[in-house]
Amino acid sequence: MSTNPMGINTDTLTDTLLILGCGLIGTSLAAGLSQAGYEGKIYGYARRAETVVKATGSGWFDGASSDVSDWAGVTDIIVLCAPLSAIPELLQAIKPHLQANTVITDVGSVKQPVIDAVQTYLPECSPQVVPGHPIAGSEQSGFDAGKPDLFQGRRVILTPLPNTHVEAISKVTRLWQRVQATVVSMSVDMHDRVLATSSHLPHLVAFAYVEALLGKEVASTDVEQVIANAAGGLRDFTRIAASDPIMWRDILLTNQTEVLSALQRFQEKLQHVEGLLKAGDATGILALCQAAKAVRTQFSSELD
Amino acid sequence: MSTNPMGINTDTLTDTLLILGCGLIGTSLAAGLSQAGYEGKIYGYARRAETVVKATGSGWFDGASSDVSDWAGVTDIIVLCAPLSAIPELLQAIKPHLQANTVITDVGSVKQPVIDAVQTYLPECSPQVVPGHPIAGSEQSGFDAGKPDLFQGRRVILTPLPNTHVEAISKVTRLWQRVQATVVSMSVDMHDRVLATSSHLPHLVAFAYVEALLGKEVASTDVEQVIANAAGGLRDFTRIAASDPIMWRDILLTNQTEVLSALQRFQEKLQHVEGLLKAGDATGILALCQAAKAVRTQFSSELD
Repeated sequence: MSTNPMGINTDTLTDTLLILGCGLIGTSLAAGLSQAGYEGKIYGYARRAETVVKATGSGWFDGASSDVSDWAGVTDIIVLCAPLSAIPELLQAIKPHLQANTVITDVGSVKQPVIDAVQTYLPECSPQVVPGHPIAGSEQSGFDAGKPDLFQGRRVILTPLPNTHVEAISKVTRLWQRVQATVVSMSVDMHDRVLATSSHLPHLVAFAYVEALLGKEVASTDVEQVIANAAGGLRDFTRIAASDPIMWRDILLTNQTEVLSALQRFQEKLQHVEGLLKAGDATGILALCQAAKAVRTQFSSELD
Repeated sequence: MSTNPMGINTDTLTDTLLILGCGLIGTSLAAGLSQAGYEGKIYGYARRAETVVKATGSGWFDGASSDVSDWAGVTDIIVLCAPLSAIPELLQAIKPHLQANTVITDVGSVKQPVIDAVQTYLPECSPQVVPGHPIAGSEQSGFDAGKPDLFQGRRVILTPLPNTHVEAISKVTRLWQRVQATVVSMSVDMHDRVLATSSHLPHLVAFAYVEALLGKEVASTDVEQVIANAAGGLRDFTRIAASDPIMWRDILLTNQTEVLSALQRFQEKLQHVEGLLKAGDATGILALCQAAKAVRTQFSSELD
């Protein structure tokens, strides 16, 4: 038996897995585990028949269905990989088929609503629930965007509750380690606050920027010129505005409080900068640029 | 004599060049021309002695000096590659040394202030002045960031005035084509309006975001967690916040009107989105995300 630095056995994982939702994340998890020689069965559930056909033919799943009950009763770990708004419905669908020791985890970008849904629909299962969030993704979405190396070298944040069983945490940790992710723990509050700044607000800002400056309210000749003459700045800045709308509607709405708080902070700063610009305050503008450069440069080795 | 599709002879360019400012753009121009076998002399002016030493030793310049007058009298083309705020001073410095046919061009990110400075300090030279702007750059700056292929496949926008001599435009066009840039023409107004959206406001937003959400006003434990758990979204979104502060102070202040106009449009959209979020308006948030994704996806082949 070999152990990694965290002392967890990663030799053989025989848990039967049910991945609920075969989009970018669910498919990439199946693909990554499959490529890593995962020893257990991997089943997939997808709402759309077209996706079931793709999953079945991919070689990454041992079976796929659009009926949750087909495998819910024979799985050791259920991974919820659907948009946050689909979680309550899925929890109710799997409820009649759960075994006593089935571990439930998820990949949602906001953690409190997942915990709320568990406490509403499956309160008796909560010691078996390990809320999780892989910090990996892209502006692409859907089955076709799935790839085996999506989680390689990336973080997965788990936000277990005080009553979550250690063995359940361990099972989910080993699963993510198998696709070469690094697993860390964080409180639910910290997760949702930190992600509002690192991910949710940047997406909101990119959506708003594209709509305000390149959308249908702007003269089309200007938009054509903006695009034709854009450099890397605009490209990188707006890339995430192509992300999946339903997923992001759910994230922004379910993390409403933290996103609004970060948004307010950002708007106040913009108003401050607008004032400096209106006043032609060269010293103030320079100080802003210098401070931002210092912060961004300090973190560049971690971010770039 | 070979001609390119625009009918311009690109065989031999013997113009003596003086590049005023050996930062990212000036150095990259000298490097690119040098590597392309440019036949004329290339001289460099830099304010700092340290940069003069670097330029002299680089092999990309035929000489470098911190005294403008050393070569101003023997040059056919002068390329202003200094921050916008240094332009008036440089125009005054070269004035006594200009020849009758010296062509003057620049690389500033805002064009109206360059034209204003020419009309103030060198009005008699205006038919020889070809305002220009290469759409190339990076968040890096300074001599060491210079590289020969910076302009390869990039656009250079020229904003000639009605009285600019055709031969002057032609000389500057050939220079940029020699480093494999594509040269296009645009009105000054259009340039400054389009660049406010494609470049200036994204930079302002990135500076403001970094300061508001990762700056000293935020609890350091939160900032550490944000950085440690950030994905590509935050990285790409904030990369340009590491850009040169002096250059960006000048750009934002000299394009004040257009930047403020774009900023106002953006702030109104943010307020609208804030309202949707506060109201929990799922339909409205989804419509925003969908519209933004449609716009960004439409342009993705050009931007990515």
